[in-house]
Amino acid sequence: MNMLSSEIEIDIRFSETDAMGVVWHGNYLKYFEDGREHFGKSFGLEYLTIFNSGYFTPIVKSEIDHKASVYYGDVIKVITRYIPSRSAKILFEYEVRNASTGQICATGKTMQVFLDRETRTMELLSPSFYEAWKQKNSL
Amino acid sequence: MNMLSSEIEIDIRFSETDAMGVVWHGNYLKYFEDGREHFGKSFGLEYLTIFNSGYFTPIVKSEIDHKASVYYGDVIKVITRYIPSRSAKILFEYEVRNASTGQICATGKTMQVFLDRETRTMELLSPSFYEAWKQKNSL
Amino acid sequence: MNMLSSEIEIDIRFSETDAMGVVWHGNYLKYFEDGREHFGKSFGLEYLTIFNSGYFTPIVKSEIDHKASVYYGDVIKVITRYIPSRSAKILFEYEVRNASTGQICATGKTMQVFLDRETRTMELLSPSFYEAWKQKNSL
Amino acid sequence: MNMLSSEIEIDIRFSETDAMGVVWHGNYLKYFEDGREHFGKSFGLEYLTIFNSGYFTPIVKSEIDHKASVYYGDVIKVITRYIPSRSAKILFEYEVRNASTGQICATGKTMQVFLDRETRTMELLSPSFYEAWKQKNSL
Repeated sequence: MNMLSSEIEIDIRFSETDAMGVVWHGNYLKYFEDGREHFGKSFGLEYLTIFNSGYFTPIVKSEIDHKASVYYGDVIKVITRYIPSRSAKILFEYEVRNASTGQICATGKTMQVFLDRETRTMELLSPSFYEAWKQKNSL
Repeated sequence: MNMLSSEIEIDIRFSETDAMGVVWHGNYLKYFEDGREHFGKSFGLEYLTIFNSGYFTPIVKSEIDHKASVYYGDVIKVITRYIPSRSAKILFEYEVRNASTGQICATGKTMQVFLDRETRTMELLSPSFYEAWKQKNSL
Repeated sequence: MNMLSSEIEIDIRFSETDAMGVVWHGNYLKYFEDGREHFGKSFGLEYLTIFNSGYFTPIVKSEIDHKASVYYGDVIKVITRYIPSRSAKILFEYEVRNASTGQICATGKTMQVFLDRETRTMELLSPSFYEAWKQKNSL
Repeated sequence: MNMLSSEIEIDIRFSETDAMGVVWHGNYLKYFEDGREHFGKSFGLEYLTIFNSGYFTPIVKSEIDHKASVYYGDVIKVITRYIPSRSAKILFEYEVRNASTGQICATGKTMQVFLDRETRTMELLSPSFYEAWKQKNSL
């Protein structure tokens, strides 16, 4: 089985810090989104592809574990790993590392489902475009 | 001529502060939005009313003048004043005050136009629902 | 044993929605923060109290489960429950409900630890002010 | 006299869009911040340099003019121009363009002052490190 992952570097924005002088914890979900988008661009599973196939893929579950603080001026690296699953879901795991030291700052997970774009009802079976994508990537 | 204004109190969120320990400057546009929404609810000019009349009213211009810092734990008061105009625009002025001391922390302005919700083209003349609203409020 | 919980209503901001027309998933961590702050004010465990006792209490773990979408114009209710624990941690569980229908929109959890404000090292034992607070509330 | 400007490309984040399907207007202040930071890195006027010289440089005034919408999936280019001034201020002008079409989406301005990092009082005269920086760049 294949293991797909992508890696992106992100400069921390001043607006993303808080009064403790570090990145506000909720902003990691933005970094995960950046990682996911980059994964999508790298492997042909972008938001707009999904949208044009007739679906939204909202996040229904997310988790963040913080290991070390990130400061303004730091550059981080987000590693996004696709987790294969038989169900009609998209699962990712994330690692946020300090780009210069390699230190792990946070890890996390997200789960997405498929909503029909028009009816906004959840698909219980994987859409065919997604099955085709998995097959093409031996997942 | 009538002068319409509304006033709302807002608790500062921790996530709205930055590494200088104060509210990040861009977040004042959220407070202006809160003020504008509260004005809308008070005087019947809400986003959803506008939307249901067939329009979006995007911000096309905004200005903020910062006079004093706002800290986490502070409560602010946003005073939103409607500025009458003959053109197909919605103009507001804002005052952000520290709710306990009354000190002015920021002032600002926004300008909105009317976009047809379907075509997303700008209306050169005021929509009739807006003219009716102005008349009703002697503006 | 005591069960402490608090409840707060929050108006959804337009800036908190995304291009799917619903609240962007990451913004629930802001609502949890609002809930936590409200809990703190209700029961004397505020950020500033903690800060003045010499500590930061950063979030080291957070989870969100999304059950239903929240739209602009909705009002939500956040119920924040304190979860007793013997370790040097602060644990909360959250429920986000649609304030008018009562429907559960999301649930979640956070874990906070105590950092010495000066050295930024983690406290392995509960600070005495926290033990006193727990005792006072029969937790 | 010299004209200093820098240019940076930015991918629009999904979380930066709103329920109108476009970038929420307040997020342009984040793009201006990205532009300013990139300018700072290019010409040696970074936040951390300023901080280490003993100053904060908070924004005291900002303006945005919106010319065209920006959508999710778009890439923008932010051009940041330093505006020379004799006073103890840092002035920038910004242009946000669609990176693929070149269309101007927004323009803007910011004004920053120098605060002593310890006393948080405003400097009426330009700090010497800033005068040296201007001289070095023939500004």
